[in-house]
Amino acid sequence: MYRFTNDYSEGAHPDLLAAIAATNTEGNSGYGCDGHCAEAGARIRELCAAPDADVHFLVGGTQTNMTAVAAFLRPHEAVIAASTGHVCVHETGAIEATGHKCVAAPGENGKLTPDAVRAVCAAHPDEHMVKPRLVYVSNTTEIGTVYTEEELAALRAACDELGLYLYLDGARLGCAIAAGGAGFEALARLCDAFSIGGTKNGALFGEALVIVNDALKPDFRWVLKQRGGMLAKGWLLGVQFDALLKNDLYLSLARHANELALRLRDGIMALGYVFSSPSTTNQQFPVLPDAVLDEMRGEFHWEEMGSPAPGMTNIRLVTSWATPPQAVDAFLARLEELTKA
Amino acid sequence: MYRFTNDYSEGAHPDLLAAIAATNTEGNSGYGCDGHCAEAGARIRELCAAPDADVHFLVGGTQTNMTAVAAFLRPHEAVIAASTGHVCVHETGAIEATGHKCVAAPGENGKLTPDAVRAVCAAHPDEHMVKPRLVYVSNTTEIGTVYTEEELAALRAACDELGLYLYLDGARLGCAIAAGGAGFEALARLCDAFSIGGTKNGALFGEALVIVNDALKPDFRWVLKQRGGMLAKGWLLGVQFDALLKNDLYLSLARHANELALRLRDGIMALGYVFSSPSTTNQQFPVLPDAVLDEMRGEFHWEEMGSPAPGMTNIRLVTSWATPPQAVDAFLARLEELTKA
Amino acid sequence: MYRFTNDYSEGAHPDLLAAIAATNTEGNSGYGCDGHCAEAGARIRELCAAPDADVHFLVGGTQTNMTAVAAFLRPHEAVIAASTGHVCVHETGAIEATGHKCVAAPGENGKLTPDAVRAVCAAHPDEHMVKPRLVYVSNTTEIGTVYTEEELAALRAACDELGLYLYLDGARLGCAIAAGGAGFEALARLCDAFSIGGTKNGALFGEALVIVNDALKPDFRWVLKQRGGMLAKGWLLGVQFDALLKNDLYLSLARHANELALRLRDGIMALGYVFSSPSTTNQQFPVLPDAVLDEMRGEFHWEEMGSPAPGMTNIRLVTSWATPPQAVDAFLARLEELTKA
Amino acid sequence: MYRFTNDYSEGAHPDLLAAIAATNTEGNSGYGCDGHCAEAGARIRELCAAPDADVHFLVGGTQTNMTAVAAFLRPHEAVIAASTGHVCVHETGAIEATGHKCVAAPGENGKLTPDAVRAVCAAHPDEHMVKPRLVYVSNTTEIGTVYTEEELAALRAACDELGLYLYLDGARLGCAIAAGGAGFEALARLCDAFSIGGTKNGALFGEALVIVNDALKPDFRWVLKQRGGMLAKGWLLGVQFDALLKNDLYLSLARHANELALRLRDGIMALGYVFSSPSTTNQQFPVLPDAVLDEMRGEFHWEEMGSPAPGMTNIRLVTSWATPPQAVDAFLARLEELTKA
Repeated sequence: MYRFTNDYSEGAHPDLLAAIAATNTEGNSGYGCDGHCAEAGARIRELCAAPDADVHFLVGGTQTNMTAVAAFLRPHEAVIAASTGHVCVHETGAIEATGHKCVAAPGENGKLTPDAVRAVCAAHPDEHMVKPRLVYVSNTTEIGTVYTEEELAALRAACDELGLYLYLDGARLGCAIAAGGAGFEALARLCDAFSIGGTKNGALFGEALVIVNDALKPDFRWVLKQRGGMLAKGWLLGVQFDALLKNDLYLSLARHANELALRLRDGIMALGYVFSSPSTTNQQFPVLPDAVLDEMRGEFHWEEMGSPAPGMTNIRLVTSWATPPQAVDAFLARLEELTKA
Repeated sequence: MYRFTNDYSEGAHPDLLAAIAATNTEGNSGYGCDGHCAEAGARIRELCAAPDADVHFLVGGTQTNMTAVAAFLRPHEAVIAASTGHVCVHETGAIEATGHKCVAAPGENGKLTPDAVRAVCAAHPDEHMVKPRLVYVSNTTEIGTVYTEEELAALRAACDELGLYLYLDGARLGCAIAAGGAGFEALARLCDAFSIGGTKNGALFGEALVIVNDALKPDFRWVLKQRGGMLAKGWLLGVQFDALLKNDLYLSLARHANELALRLRDGIMALGYVFSSPSTTNQQFPVLPDAVLDEMRGEFHWEEMGSPAPGMTNIRLVTSWATPPQAVDAFLARLEELTKA
Repeated sequence: MYRFTNDYSEGAHPDLLAAIAATNTEGNSGYGCDGHCAEAGARIRELCAAPDADVHFLVGGTQTNMTAVAAFLRPHEAVIAASTGHVCVHETGAIEATGHKCVAAPGENGKLTPDAVRAVCAAHPDEHMVKPRLVYVSNTTEIGTVYTEEELAALRAACDELGLYLYLDGARLGCAIAAGGAGFEALARLCDAFSIGGTKNGALFGEALVIVNDALKPDFRWVLKQRGGMLAKGWLLGVQFDALLKNDLYLSLARHANELALRLRDGIMALGYVFSSPSTTNQQFPVLPDAVLDEMRGEFHWEEMGSPAPGMTNIRLVTSWATPPQAVDAFLARLEELTKA
Repeated sequence: MYRFTNDYSEGAHPDLLAAIAATNTEGNSGYGCDGHCAEAGARIRELCAAPDADVHFLVGGTQTNMTAVAAFLRPHEAVIAASTGHVCVHETGAIEATGHKCVAAPGENGKLTPDAVRAVCAAHPDEHMVKPRLVYVSNTTEIGTVYTEEELAALRAACDELGLYLYLDGARLGCAIAAGGAGFEALARLCDAFSIGGTKNGALFGEALVIVNDALKPDFRWVLKQRGGMLAKGWLLGVQFDALLKNDLYLSLARHANELALRLRDGIMALGYVFSSPSTTNQQFPVLPDAVLDEMRGEFHWEEMGSPAPGMTNIRLVTSWATPPQAVDAFLARLEELTKA
């Protein structure tokens, strides 16, 4: 049975498991005040060419987004996100639970545009409405597309013009960068804060939050603790990020995931199927016949995203650092067989 | 200078001012625990044929909506409202500040439909998304349209089917009922809770919240106090509602407002202008030429809602219990003169 | 029947009622953006010799406190208050409902001391605890005592030393100033923000919030709206405060209340009774025999604060601008009669 | 260098590390919907003789407490805790950030008594105050003392009498049970909900929340997700708890920690020193001379809790499953040497 269900079905890359085991009896300070977190932070600052950035390590993505928003915004300030944005839809109102509204804007291929941001601000002119204050983007997006450096620069310009923060959720940042999206240095230059996702790219768990804008740095650890995001054995996060960001491991894992996804995409396209998203990364969204899917269901796992036409289902296939190439081969072979039958 | 800016530019109907003055030195208990509130509550229960309803009096509309939502919902439960709904747009995120998401659904003429409600629920199937729990409707709607008893009954059926509460914001309830919308008894039968607006229909200030569903009653006064909505001199609210709901004053004031609005509508239509909403109540939304508006601006006040076409502006004209008929006459005469010039 | 229950049992001073009636049909802009609020604000700025202060008008005291705290503090920042402080005990957790902890400190005669503030800060050294940030004091205090200018100056010095805001709840500010407490100019010099209470001193309702510290001013109206505190007919507040602060009316009403309270105090003391608080203002807290109270209960109203000794009850007697001198005479005469019986 | 700083300085017991490694490439469903969580949950239900209990797994203790309170309480309901309670002091206002007040009550040796609970309820009689609703106790307490089954039964009786929930924070539950505190079955019988701490007793991280009261079960996973506590790779928690609760490992690790702590205690006492808490578990609080501590500081780590007398410091020594006996021997030997010097 091959899983294309998601990119968090496996544990950690062996290097990270080994690193965790190696520190098991070291005796580290708690709450992220240890040498491993310090080293991982330094590595991230170097990678981003952002020597003054603050780096914090959290366990999960929803936690990272909600803690950042809680720390960065005043009560009446709101988040702007694409209507497909993770914070808008898939976090059970975590942002709202911190008291802030998420204003959904139409995206293009899952991506916010400067004009959509401007339109939201124009529609919120006074104190009877929330005040848009933070632009949330995710890279890759929820549908696998990628913000380039140029696109982020255009959003940055709109943010500067409108007095907004730019925050990037990097839960799948490796795949975004590996697919030509804005790189670490560009992120640190263009965003006020962004996260580097570990959970979906080689770590057991963990997201690194990089705060570049000085105005957003004070007292972050207070808010981190208050929202339940301060891990007692924080070094577990430092150790993993240190191993992950060393020797290009992070991007090489993402390249693996992307390559297999593109092989899936190309193979499926070659059979004449269409896709609901022009994704170039590890999530692919083909539309396949129900009859074919019924045959494949026992052997392969995926998520279903609805039915765009009678007898057809839009599925999501996700690859990861842990996906074996033979899973892709098997999927394509079986699909070809069933298609040509 | 004639004001069609809104329906809260004047104070109270003289009967209410007199009632307030008459109780000035009575010496009443605080916090709504007085005889006037008791009488007004009894009057409302009778009017609604809801002998077991709880009635609470609050000062303002945003306060009423946010306190009700805070009291009625658990943290992960969300509000469904038309995208034009007051709670979605014009309350500065008051609902979100209590921790709850507002899910906006497309409205038809400003009104939620059962199918729109069903679609929201279908799109929120599991614990990764908020759980829709309370349907918010306003009567009249924000664009002056009216829910009939049949429409509310259909929403009620959808709510029963889906396990949702039905809450009606009656900030302009008088105008809705006077225009043929669902009446007090129907509201008490169909809604879990609803408000009766005083501020915009004869009172200095004040909204009555009627809680019909027993499950929503416990401890409401705790939440009322906690959210800042418990007026120290609560009898001021009881006194006003008692006077307002006596002798048909409430609906007669609303009829006055509606009649003048319809005269405005008919007169403007007769001159060939279009409206952005099929409102039958005290808010009218004609689209008028900028050149004409420029001439009228010194003499009349209104709000502007954007420009639907070059050289044209969509304005909002609001009448109230306090609007003098000559204001309408003067507006129509001047518009005719400028239109025919 | 004479009421010493509280200072909000009557409506408004006749001058204020008349002022409200006089503006009833003026047609004012909504939400506090009217000429009356502008004039009242200007009058307050002049009274406080604080030409740059922002002045906002709200309906009630809990609302004022919670909105100020929500607007002024970041999520992890906490309020320090005397354990008897209104925000700690009598506002149903309104502060906590905005997400902030109230840290209670021991008071001396209901008043916070600089040393108590320092001790709270010393006990909250790091990110595992909330960060104390705003010192809340009320003048008069909940037990009728008064902060002098010197005492506030000492708290201010502690706040400067520790990076704290000083906020003064002036729900009973008139009585505090009339009894020799810090005056308007001193408040504006020493506090970051403070309120001037109308509800308990001549107004139907209303508190003026004066924000002196520039850092606390931005976007206050957004938070005001979000928390339900922006009154649609805001001019009702402006009109009242304008009348109240004209011609020394505010302090003359407070002097009346204090004088009657001190007559009560002196008369009760002369009969040999003790008091639980050295109050010099309009709340007095004598300890009286249950047998005596049983006789007086039908004729006079008061609140009971518990039993400090068998057969004795600590009661609260409150006077106001509306208390007739004969109420005091009658109380003292009856008490003397019963005591000497 | 020997660490007595805390009980979360080391990673996981080797059995748990091995179990994590063994499942690394299994391919598990996310978010706790996997077989390992199911097995661990079944094991806990069996251990507690509570076949209907709901079991959820969370990463950390603050997260567990705040999510439980957010899920269990309505907005105006408050937590009662001993003034030393973790939620009162050491969680940066996490409870308040969910909108709820923590009412601190005096403890006896860190433990709440039924009478203290009754006193809090008596002091919160009406809607002007929060409504106490959940009694929070921790076992072991923050100062190492232990609630017996009898003490919990007495609290339960008070809770029943007053309409309160009883919630037990078991961050150090192993040590409590190993020291004679209420066992798993008693907890499930007496508490509405309680947690079983893994982080401080053999796990890399993880707390199991056991919800016994049916009224508190609905929709917990929604709140869990909303507060950021739903781990993507949830099976990591199931795997650990399954290993930890098998073959008596959990209690045997706790016995080890307690035994070493008691050896420390007895050895230090034998040298004539006093303790600030009658702890019988893995935290010990001796008061030692500064001069002695200065000599030992390079070799041993501890936390300092203040100075009860000139020249003396109250320190906290913590043992854990990972503490080597020779650390205790070395500490006692050095202390004896310095004491007798």
